[in-house]
Amino acid sequence: MIIILKKDAPASQLDMLTSWLKERNLQVHHSEGTSQTILGLIGNTHHLDIDLIKQMEIVEDVKRIQEPFKNANRKFHPLDTVVKVGTQNIGDGGLTVIAGPCSVESEEQIVTVARSVKASGATLLRGGAFKPRTSPYAFQGLRDEGIRLLLEAKKDTGLPIVTEIMDISQLDLFAEVDVIQVGARNMQNFELLKQLGHCKQPILLKRGLANTYQELLMSAEYIMASGNENVMLCERGIRTFETYTRNTLDISAVPSLKTLSHLPVVIDPSHAAGISRFVSPLSKAAVAIGADALIIEVHNNPACALCDGAQSLTMEAFDRLMKELKGFVDARELCK
Amino acid sequence: MIIILKKDAPASQLDMLTSWLKERNLQVHHSEGTSQTILGLIGNTHHLDIDLIKQMEIVEDVKRIQEPFKNANRKFHPLDTVVKVGTQNIGDGGLTVIAGPCSVESEEQIVTVARSVKASGATLLRGGAFKPRTSPYAFQGLRDEGIRLLLEAKKDTGLPIVTEIMDISQLDLFAEVDVIQVGARNMQNFELLKQLGHCKQPILLKRGLANTYQELLMSAEYIMASGNENVMLCERGIRTFETYTRNTLDISAVPSLKTLSHLPVVIDPSHAAGISRFVSPLSKAAVAIGADALIIEVHNNPACALCDGAQSLTMEAFDRLMKELKGFVDARELCK
Amino acid sequence: MIIILKKDAPASQLDMLTSWLKERNLQVHHSEGTSQTILGLIGNTHHLDIDLIKQMEIVEDVKRIQEPFKNANRKFHPLDTVVKVGTQNIGDGGLTVIAGPCSVESEEQIVTVARSVKASGATLLRGGAFKPRTSPYAFQGLRDEGIRLLLEAKKDTGLPIVTEIMDISQLDLFAEVDVIQVGARNMQNFELLKQLGHCKQPILLKRGLANTYQELLMSAEYIMASGNENVMLCERGIRTFETYTRNTLDISAVPSLKTLSHLPVVIDPSHAAGISRFVSPLSKAAVAIGADALIIEVHNNPACALCDGAQSLTMEAFDRLMKELKGFVDARELCK
Amino acid sequence: MIIILKKDAPASQLDMLTSWLKERNLQVHHSEGTSQTILGLIGNTHHLDIDLIKQMEIVEDVKRIQEPFKNANRKFHPLDTVVKVGTQNIGDGGLTVIAGPCSVESEEQIVTVARSVKASGATLLRGGAFKPRTSPYAFQGLRDEGIRLLLEAKKDTGLPIVTEIMDISQLDLFAEVDVIQVGARNMQNFELLKQLGHCKQPILLKRGLANTYQELLMSAEYIMASGNENVMLCERGIRTFETYTRNTLDISAVPSLKTLSHLPVVIDPSHAAGISRFVSPLSKAAVAIGADALIIEVHNNPACALCDGAQSLTMEAFDRLMKELKGFVDARELCK
Repeated sequence: MIIILKKDAPASQLDMLTSWLKERNLQVHHSEGTSQTILGLIGNTHHLDIDLIKQMEIVEDVKRIQEPFKNANRKFHPLDTVVKVGTQNIGDGGLTVIAGPCSVESEEQIVTVARSVKASGATLLRGGAFKPRTSPYAFQGLRDEGIRLLLEAKKDTGLPIVTEIMDISQLDLFAEVDVIQVGARNMQNFELLKQLGHCKQPILLKRGLANTYQELLMSAEYIMASGNENVMLCERGIRTFETYTRNTLDISAVPSLKTLSHLPVVIDPSHAAGISRFVSPLSKAAVAIGADALIIEVHNNPACALCDGAQSLTMEAFDRLMKELKGFVDARELCK
Repeated sequence: MIIILKKDAPASQLDMLTSWLKERNLQVHHSEGTSQTILGLIGNTHHLDIDLIKQMEIVEDVKRIQEPFKNANRKFHPLDTVVKVGTQNIGDGGLTVIAGPCSVESEEQIVTVARSVKASGATLLRGGAFKPRTSPYAFQGLRDEGIRLLLEAKKDTGLPIVTEIMDISQLDLFAEVDVIQVGARNMQNFELLKQLGHCKQPILLKRGLANTYQELLMSAEYIMASGNENVMLCERGIRTFETYTRNTLDISAVPSLKTLSHLPVVIDPSHAAGISRFVSPLSKAAVAIGADALIIEVHNNPACALCDGAQSLTMEAFDRLMKELKGFVDARELCK
Repeated sequence: MIIILKKDAPASQLDMLTSWLKERNLQVHHSEGTSQTILGLIGNTHHLDIDLIKQMEIVEDVKRIQEPFKNANRKFHPLDTVVKVGTQNIGDGGLTVIAGPCSVESEEQIVTVARSVKASGATLLRGGAFKPRTSPYAFQGLRDEGIRLLLEAKKDTGLPIVTEIMDISQLDLFAEVDVIQVGARNMQNFELLKQLGHCKQPILLKRGLANTYQELLMSAEYIMASGNENVMLCERGIRTFETYTRNTLDISAVPSLKTLSHLPVVIDPSHAAGISRFVSPLSKAAVAIGADALIIEVHNNPACALCDGAQSLTMEAFDRLMKELKGFVDARELCK
Repeated sequence: MIIILKKDAPASQLDMLTSWLKERNLQVHHSEGTSQTILGLIGNTHHLDIDLIKQMEIVEDVKRIQEPFKNANRKFHPLDTVVKVGTQNIGDGGLTVIAGPCSVESEEQIVTVARSVKASGATLLRGGAFKPRTSPYAFQGLRDEGIRLLLEAKKDTGLPIVTEIMDISQLDLFAEVDVIQVGARNMQNFELLKQLGHCKQPILLKRGLANTYQELLMSAEYIMASGNENVMLCERGIRTFETYTRNTLDISAVPSLKTLSHLPVVIDPSHAAGISRFVSPLSKAAVAIGADALIIEVHNNPACALCDGAQSLTMEAFDRLMKELKGFVDARELCK
């Protein structure tokens, strides 16, 4: 960490700051230029409160040299983390596909979709029981009944299940859920993250709509610091000025997060675009760039022809996509 | 609401959609152009799920004509809501100033600051007990002990207290808190909002870092729809590309929110800029543009000269600001 | 176009507005709801100034139903535009690779790189002569000498050349340039766009850092409305809150722009990330999602080992990338 | 400037980098930590190309300690710059109001508005002759005829005139214009900025829609480095996710720019909000926070009652605003 001092910093205050830093087991390198004095800190600065230092009267600016996350940092953990879910390994270089409906609606629906996506090659089942909706008047999900139905579908197909938690109070209901998802709007629900650090299941952590990689990794750090190292990072589109797509998929998140961290990276092309016909092209791009997993919305609406243009793929379109992805998986294998 | 159909929408699907809308008690006006067909919906569309309609195969786009919030909407509630806290009225055209330290640190600290800000003219006391921090390694607040100390300061000074809740599980501790604050990162913690709708205390709802006015008002709607109509909207800076200030204060939020809604609008100049010497100029701008209240960080650090440049004002600087604000309050009175 | 009127719009003003619209050859459908009156306009609204209508006293809001661009709009031109540059067809379903150095530095440099990228499979040569730099103290390019050197490299290799124009006054120097590039910062330099509409060469139009697809297409419209229909749209990264990569590549721009428009779409992975080791993964994603062309920075720095980590690829790395791309091109061919 | 080296940087390359820096008259402080080596550069780094260094293979990151602008930097020019326009001083602590119509439409219009705003207290006249419009089909301004009409209004009222230039080729027409405005979309039209550096008139430089303070100051630096030191910085709203207002006025730009630079700061409340009834509250906020000048759109449309809701104020509303501003000017005087 580098501390840049104000031009007129009085010696007495500089001494106080230096002592304060040394008490925290840091070496302080003092470098005086013609127009600026700089302190270089050597030692473990992870536990230092950067805001506190910035607030000091004699400090002009503070610049971190090292990232403020440690457990999630590839520098301290060079090998890829492989997350195991059932018999599936996520992060081992292969491609995992997680598929299922946006919301769980009925036993028939979830079992039908589960069987279909399994037949097409998906190895995990997703489905929403608790639904975060911007409007209090919109459907809020089947909640505990939704979890029960997902477990039925798991029993029927053997597919491990992934579903979203919205509050600590729901934690008991998630005992048999295989992967607990944290939604974009809860990425910085720190109390929830701390509790998830005490769970034994892997966590699928979605990036917030306007959050940086570092903030995502700091949220992963919250979970990992509490003891749960099985975190998967999910890019699901960020908010930009473009509104033609619902969000903007930040595809560079794949190489970026894999450079900064050892955790697996999952792409959610369905929420990113919000347009079903873009799910297939975005999935191909995600495979080409090296994503560890895809999480894709698939629905069955035999009775509702009107709903065919959703961000969800039909089961037929998903099956076609799985076949098309093969060529891209092969091409990326050849680059290794 | 306006539904724009795709060019080649089959008549059978259009009939299905029309029936579906009529079942929801909406009149459907059909308007056929040379290159586009448009459906105009007349009736109460507040409870209509716009995403569901957008997903329909024959639909090209849906445009809302009316705002999706009702309880918070000035159109349905033309008079200003005045929120009463103790003997204070917020939203009646006057200026309320809420002040206090970022974090509660000790009884001596909070009582000292409370007495001082009261003497300078503040009528509510703020202080953080539960602190949302991006790093798990940063100070997380005194938590329940912090609440207890705030209540001591209230007993001492008579100032009602404002403090932040981070999770539903903390609700019992907030029984005697006068105003419950929801932080920017929890603006869309919908489970929390629903519970706060059942509280009797006013809620100070902060706008999320990348959220729109409509999203803020939808979150207010969550609270109001559950029965609590005493919501204050707080602008505390949004994320922009500018990083010189920590956030960017969106001062237009004052006239905008007051046009869209009848709820009082509070400005937080301390978090917006993150720079203590900008708190005073931003406060003046907020008063000039018509904010109902300011929430300002004030600290006492007699022993720590180093900390004097914080986003917090010293007690002396706060006192000076309160005197300077008088001229701006008078000037805005004259414009009425 | 839909005009939403204010609740209390006086009949006299409504009559004036209706007459004004009819004078512009538009049919006006009047639809009165319980709480809102809406005018639906039928006819050609492309030439209507939406801002002017929004400003009218009785108007609450105006919503476009049709896009405001026509020449660039796929709805009026369903077939893909194929841009011909020398013997190369861009936009015919194949992949074109444009490569070359960031700046032209010397004849030896540009000829060496040109020969090398041609041997690796590039079919157009890029190189900067006029360089837009945020600092007046940074290298501004070789300017007219740079153009001359590019033409030497073209003579040597037969590769058509692509280079950036920064001002109308430079136009004479571009007489023999094969493709004229408009940089991101000039995307809304409307005077320049109008002049380029009178050129015979294809234009490579880069999207501005914070511009929408519609704004990009409106800028293409400026060129096309002046008579030059050979416009290629280039996504080169947008500004977001993430600063780890220099910009954020909006990969969804490929399917989005190809849906909205018939013009070819080019991806610039070098400027998007600003990190050389991300050029290869981003290129693969761009090919997978269906980009018509890539524009990639390639340099030769035999004497300067220090410069090897640039956003530019070395000639060797570019050669390797071209070989690796083959698998992804084949995979996308199979999906047709 | 601080250069952070990669962990495994070979000594030979480090030697090359150190020599390269010393050749540029910089002292290099070498500071080796357990996990990172850092080079601190002492001397004039303004002319150093930061991108070039970032690209070097052994470099992990580069952090500027000093701002990259010098002429515009308050550190090197502590006293406020006062720009003189006619008898008016802008930047001397008082408030200057620039007013006039969005577009010049006719002699009668511009003279009428000029007389009216002068009577209300404006001391400069604004008016658009060349109009940057996103659509090629929208009105592009009266162009040279517009300049002529502005000069007529100047002759009639004695008010100096401010109008926008869009291209270098228009420069001859601006010989008698008192203040040349550079629009937001041309903020990084570097060729234009260089030419304006050779003009004798003050330049009103508007901040781009998604540009930072530093980028704005670098553009001012372009003008100043070419010899013209009379630059005024104008905040006119930035693009954010909020679309209720056309742009978001960044009011913090006033104290921020005045801290970073000695140049006067102008606020444009008309373009910022795009809503006429917000012009008055935003103007008051701008005065309260310390803006040196306001630039406000005022129109006369006696014949067109429909146009009364524009972002422009009527002459009557402007007159009322000028009276109301007095109280806020007085209040800020008292704080000095």
